[in-house]
Amino acid sequence: MLTVNAYAAPSATEPLVPTTIERRDVGPHDVLIEIAYAGICHSDIHTVRGEWGEISYPQVVGHEIVGVVTEVGSEVSLHAVGDRVGVGCMVNSCRECENCLAGAENYCLNGNTGTYAAVDKDGSITQGGYSTHVVVVEDFVLKVPESIPYEAAAPLLCAGITTYSPLAHWNAGPGKKVAVVGMGGLGHMAVKIAHAMGAEVTVLSQSLSKKEDGLRLGADHYYATSDDETFEKLANTFDLIINSVSAKIDIDSYLKLLRLHGTLVSVGAPPEALEVHAFTLFDNRRSFAGSSIGSIAETQEMLDFCAEHGIAAEIELIDASQINEAYKRVLNSDVRYRFVIDVESIK
Amino acid sequence: MLTVNAYAAPSATEPLVPTTIERRDVGPHDVLIEIAYAGICHSDIHTVRGEWGEISYPQVVGHEIVGVVTEVGSEVSLHAVGDRVGVGCMVNSCRECENCLAGAENYCLNGNTGTYAAVDKDGSITQGGYSTHVVVVEDFVLKVPESIPYEAAAPLLCAGITTYSPLAHWNAGPGKKVAVVGMGGLGHMAVKIAHAMGAEVTVLSQSLSKKEDGLRLGADHYYATSDDETFEKLANTFDLIINSVSAKIDIDSYLKLLRLHGTLVSVGAPPEALEVHAFTLFDNRRSFAGSSIGSIAETQEMLDFCAEHGIAAEIELIDASQINEAYKRVLNSDVRYRFVIDVESIK
Repeated sequence: MLTVNAYAAPSATEPLVPTTIERRDVGPHDVLIEIAYAGICHSDIHTVRGEWGEISYPQVVGHEIVGVVTEVGSEVSLHAVGDRVGVGCMVNSCRECENCLAGAENYCLNGNTGTYAAVDKDGSITQGGYSTHVVVVEDFVLKVPESIPYEAAAPLLCAGITTYSPLAHWNAGPGKKVAVVGMGGLGHMAVKIAHAMGAEVTVLSQSLSKKEDGLRLGADHYYATSDDETFEKLANTFDLIINSVSAKIDIDSYLKLLRLHGTLVSVGAPPEALEVHAFTLFDNRRSFAGSSIGSIAETQEMLDFCAEHGIAAEIELIDASQINEAYKRVLNSDVRYRFVIDVESIK
Repeated sequence: MLTVNAYAAPSATEPLVPTTIERRDVGPHDVLIEIAYAGICHSDIHTVRGEWGEISYPQVVGHEIVGVVTEVGSEVSLHAVGDRVGVGCMVNSCRECENCLAGAENYCLNGNTGTYAAVDKDGSITQGGYSTHVVVVEDFVLKVPESIPYEAAAPLLCAGITTYSPLAHWNAGPGKKVAVVGMGGLGHMAVKIAHAMGAEVTVLSQSLSKKEDGLRLGADHYYATSDDETFEKLANTFDLIINSVSAKIDIDSYLKLLRLHGTLVSVGAPPEALEVHAFTLFDNRRSFAGSSIGSIAETQEMLDFCAEHGIAAEIELIDASQINEAYKRVLNSDVRYRFVIDVESIK
């Protein structure tokens, strides 16, 4: 066992505090990673607060992890000491259901093993990336291309793949009109990636406060959804809409913005049900879909795509002591566009 | 003007009665059809009762029409006197929106001209197929293959194309598991067509009362949705689900039956909103879609497909005097599987 420094939530209602946790010994197929940076995802906050179900405490979260390999198990062939690597939202899967066998371990039918707050193969509860080290089975470790700045790479492991996967699956590209709902951590990555794929990109944000940023990051158009005229003007326009908002929105109004055979994909999710009128789906033969992160192979593809196109996350780098303040700002949508913890401050 | 016999609804609450209506003179691009048979669609009932919005009365409905061409306009090139033809749910469209230009006039952005209760190009209200004759512009008239029995061909013009279109669009075929929700007019056609396409077909019906029919028509499996075990047993199973039920069902429960990248397509629609949980769509990257009839080209493709595979609707042939009784039976789901009016009885 390796005892390492970390920042953990002691309960659903208390601030995160410095602590130590145990990491398992490096097994034959494991990689030990010295973490350099960890992104703060809205899911971290939902999880520690028990909003997505009860968890056990103390709990370390963080599933946007980059670092350096410092030790490898005897059977490891994919990574070597010194490699720049990343870990995203999952650290294992059942490897035997039809989805795992099809290379879609993110849709593991037995539930993949989340990077934190999940029951690991050995029965322990997984602990996330707000920590100096993590031990992960080699085939759930990604290679982070040299050309992506380390700290800006961390958010790609969740925000990047969560938006890349539906954009790729639904063929965002030249000639396609793509709208991105919400201009936060996920949304700003969707804008960059969709633009790099060659699509015509429109941001639909509550206000125009981030318009300048949106256009700079690659959007061709920017509209405020607080303005009802936006919905009239853009009716029947988009081939693909990526909804990155996790609050409950009037999804039917957004569906009406889809043109023939268009799809609205939610990657953010409220706990409440969304109300959809079948008649809205009849028009233009629209689809309403969901998408959840991406497979390991697709995540590697995304990292390579980002390197090739020179894109990464826009971040605000913080020390671990600022995590609780950062959580407040995330809840106020006051971050441009992802907080990343410099893990040096946890050591 | 041509005065012809018809059966019309005098109001939203009264039974249909025999009457006469006017058909326009045959224009240069028009075809005059002597109607032989007209199917009774649930939409007919919704429409005459004002359940889909106010309409003007008297109103003749019916949009599953087959007959013989008895006169053609001077410019008509697609059809000739004596041809066996059909007319479905629309008799025109704007011909200039992007969907019409893309050959998807069923999704006309300016609203295609419905076969009944719609405002026609000349400002009159269209009157449907419970009538001895109809005048229709030639390119909205289909050719009914010789090999399909006339009376069994009528329901193909709505029930047939409504189910064929999503089955074809979402690639029902060998290796695909397709479920059909509801075993009525639309559902029984979906079973026949999906089976003919080579898919493995499962019927999900409230009870097992029509199981024998379902298996005879081509279903491989048949389950009762009143049995909760059905939903547990079939979780993560289907590539495609065609929901033919127009009552409000718990759509989330059905979405959970979709396997990786599966799509549930509603072709029946309740007026109320349906409640969908985004988390249900996240799993297996599921989609919830709608589909509305089919284009004229696709309708012809469907008719030719049905002829090639020797399939048509299962019908109960009635005289016009039985329409009101038939409506009651449709509302009680007591028809196997489509009523068709012998229009000889209106002459």
